[in-house]
Amino acid sequence: MTDFNRTRAAFHLPEGVTYLDGNSLGPMPLAARDRVARMMQDEWAEELIRGWNSAGWYEQPRRVGDRVARLIGAGPGQVVMGDTLSIKVFQAVSAARALRPERRVILSDSGNFPSDLYVAEGLARAVGAELRVVEPEAVADAIGPDLAVLMITEVDYRTGRRHDMAGLTARAHEAGALTVWDLAHSAGAVDVDLLGADADFAVGCTYKYLNGGPGAPAFIWTHPRHAEAAEPILQGWMGHAAPFAFDLGYRPASGIERMRVGTPPVIAMTALDAALDVWEGVALADLRARSIELTEAFIAGVEANCPGVTLNSPRDPALRGSQVGFRHPQAYAVMQALIAEGVIGDFRAPDVLRFGFAPLYNGLDDVARAVDVLARLLRDGSWDKPEFHRKAAVT
Amino acid sequence: MTDFNRTRAAFHLPEGVTYLDGNSLGPMPLAARDRVARMMQDEWAEELIRGWNSAGWYEQPRRVGDRVARLIGAGPGQVVMGDTLSIKVFQAVSAARALRPERRVILSDSGNFPSDLYVAEGLARAVGAELRVVEPEAVADAIGPDLAVLMITEVDYRTGRRHDMAGLTARAHEAGALTVWDLAHSAGAVDVDLLGADADFAVGCTYKYLNGGPGAPAFIWTHPRHAEAAEPILQGWMGHAAPFAFDLGYRPASGIERMRVGTPPVIAMTALDAALDVWEGVALADLRARSIELTEAFIAGVEANCPGVTLNSPRDPALRGSQVGFRHPQAYAVMQALIAEGVIGDFRAPDVLRFGFAPLYNGLDDVARAVDVLARLLRDGSWDKPEFHRKAAVT
Repeated sequence: MTDFNRTRAAFHLPEGVTYLDGNSLGPMPLAARDRVARMMQDEWAEELIRGWNSAGWYEQPRRVGDRVARLIGAGPGQVVMGDTLSIKVFQAVSAARALRPERRVILSDSGNFPSDLYVAEGLARAVGAELRVVEPEAVADAIGPDLAVLMITEVDYRTGRRHDMAGLTARAHEAGALTVWDLAHSAGAVDVDLLGADADFAVGCTYKYLNGGPGAPAFIWTHPRHAEAAEPILQGWMGHAAPFAFDLGYRPASGIERMRVGTPPVIAMTALDAALDVWEGVALADLRARSIELTEAFIAGVEANCPGVTLNSPRDPALRGSQVGFRHPQAYAVMQALIAEGVIGDFRAPDVLRFGFAPLYNGLDDVARAVDVLARLLRDGSWDKPEFHRKAAVT
Repeated sequence: MTDFNRTRAAFHLPEGVTYLDGNSLGPMPLAARDRVARMMQDEWAEELIRGWNSAGWYEQPRRVGDRVARLIGAGPGQVVMGDTLSIKVFQAVSAARALRPERRVILSDSGNFPSDLYVAEGLARAVGAELRVVEPEAVADAIGPDLAVLMITEVDYRTGRRHDMAGLTARAHEAGALTVWDLAHSAGAVDVDLLGADADFAVGCTYKYLNGGPGAPAFIWTHPRHAEAAEPILQGWMGHAAPFAFDLGYRPASGIERMRVGTPPVIAMTALDAALDVWEGVALADLRARSIELTEAFIAGVEANCPGVTLNSPRDPALRGSQVGFRHPQAYAVMQALIAEGVIGDFRAPDVLRFGFAPLYNGLDDVARAVDVLARLLRDGSWDKPEFHRKAAVT
């Protein structure tokens, strides 16, 4: 049985804050601060360039990748870390498309995170493919013989709706296409099983439920059946078969290593590595069960106590990730008022109050407090003040 | 007059080490360790998601970019930070090529860092362009009417040879082509003047002479005349005109901001920001003068005292960056022996001993010690031991 008291104690959670925005940025694991300070002094400052060997920096993206692999149903040696999620989307979709060169359609849905669509659009324009975007419910029926790549974010960033990874993958495979799954809101949130779903490629970020810190490195996974055939467009020296031979021509490294691009971000990767310590001993089945307990309790509490909001997430927990959205016509101001009271969720345009539940550190006490404060604000109208309507640069 | 005693005192330089490998990885500025620790506690841990506004994380890539701009002869608002150098090479070359769509040649030279060639090759294959690679001396004559983009690394990573940026740029412009300059071994090492040279695009890394730490973020510069026309292939949400509107379609941000891709690496950028403090008050003319003083003294010292090595860098300082290479048939083992004595340079295949001179922290005492130890090793043959011939994973 996973000990969620232990995992909660591993984080710095500020006094007076109920943090329900770990689906945007996870809180700091205490070990991350200490590990980074040690890395900077003992490795960078003392070892200097030797750190690439003596401190294992060069191997770090693969070693950390193996730790992420366990949390997404992948095997060892199948995941590598680096860059940002946008770059990894580009790597995965370009490699998948290159495996289906005679087909030109990249299919996605309007519930996908916009950046994935921007990246696919830029790629499609460059290589003469076509990005087709349909409604989330229409994805399965839009899969046809012209499909090269199905690019889907498993859990919708606004609604928390969870796509059927195994079902859509099977459907894509029947049509002769490949799949790229974005796990931004899945990794560390739900019981992802990439090998079980027979997916082809997957990517994700680590600053949300994996708590790697702001701008933490992304990950990419390739199914072993594609690992030696995949040819990404971004050919960086760290993905070369022999980076330090300094050959003038590119030869891809074996397996997932070819998905590496430039010099890895060692300081950031060290923070992430420390954050992954917290996951040791966490069973994904326990994580999922606790996530459902929290989101069910929150939905029930809000619907029983908070006037003027409408559920914007699937009611069936099987179709939901680890977050809940409610719509309110003045969602921005309501969220600002909540934050001023120390209940931190976030706003997503145009009218969504979004709350993420991270089993590693959120409990039923957080659910109760969030419901209480939201109910009071909505009942007494105290969210409707000028200072809460003023928009910040980043929301 | 720049105070190089002040700048030297700003670094942690390990006891007993003579560090001449800052052209691979700069040493740690003491402020970087403290600033990162503070950022992690006061910003990430305490502010959580609010840090994007309250701690200025969102603006950081532009703000830090402005600090780099001064060191490369660019203006404010023209540089943005992020990703790795490989990604930024891809962004710059793809944007430059898109401005010359009717031309298909990307020209570079065999003295370029191989990763730049790999990246350009992957891009060329994807978009139907052609990468042409000539000898460094043949670049000027290879510029013709089919040229879209001249992609050159200003200072050669092995020899330190410095290309004539203004001259080659003028020649490329006469032929109707655009230039992309890689400043990996220039920024912080020589007196770069992008606007003065009338260059079109430039990119660089910050973990060498700018001392940002292992895997520190890269930078990209676009000449203002291209800033509103450049259309990079990598369309990330941070380069969108309104990232938080979550539009389904991509609209590039104004100016250099469109070169941003994914979520910026805040922890790494904070280390870099602290490292840039050391550059306050450093005049590029003083930097260049001191660099020449150091490399001239080293060449003279080695040639007078060290048998069996041959200069592998231009003798004329005007044609040289801030590094010096010597060839030796057993360069790998000789370098390992030097490192064992605390004189850290590096080896570059097949036979180059490479020494970088960073005016911010290297002095004539470093030159003297490096010459002394190298002379002794080469005279008594004590570099020729089995342990020095054994290759490490990363060299």
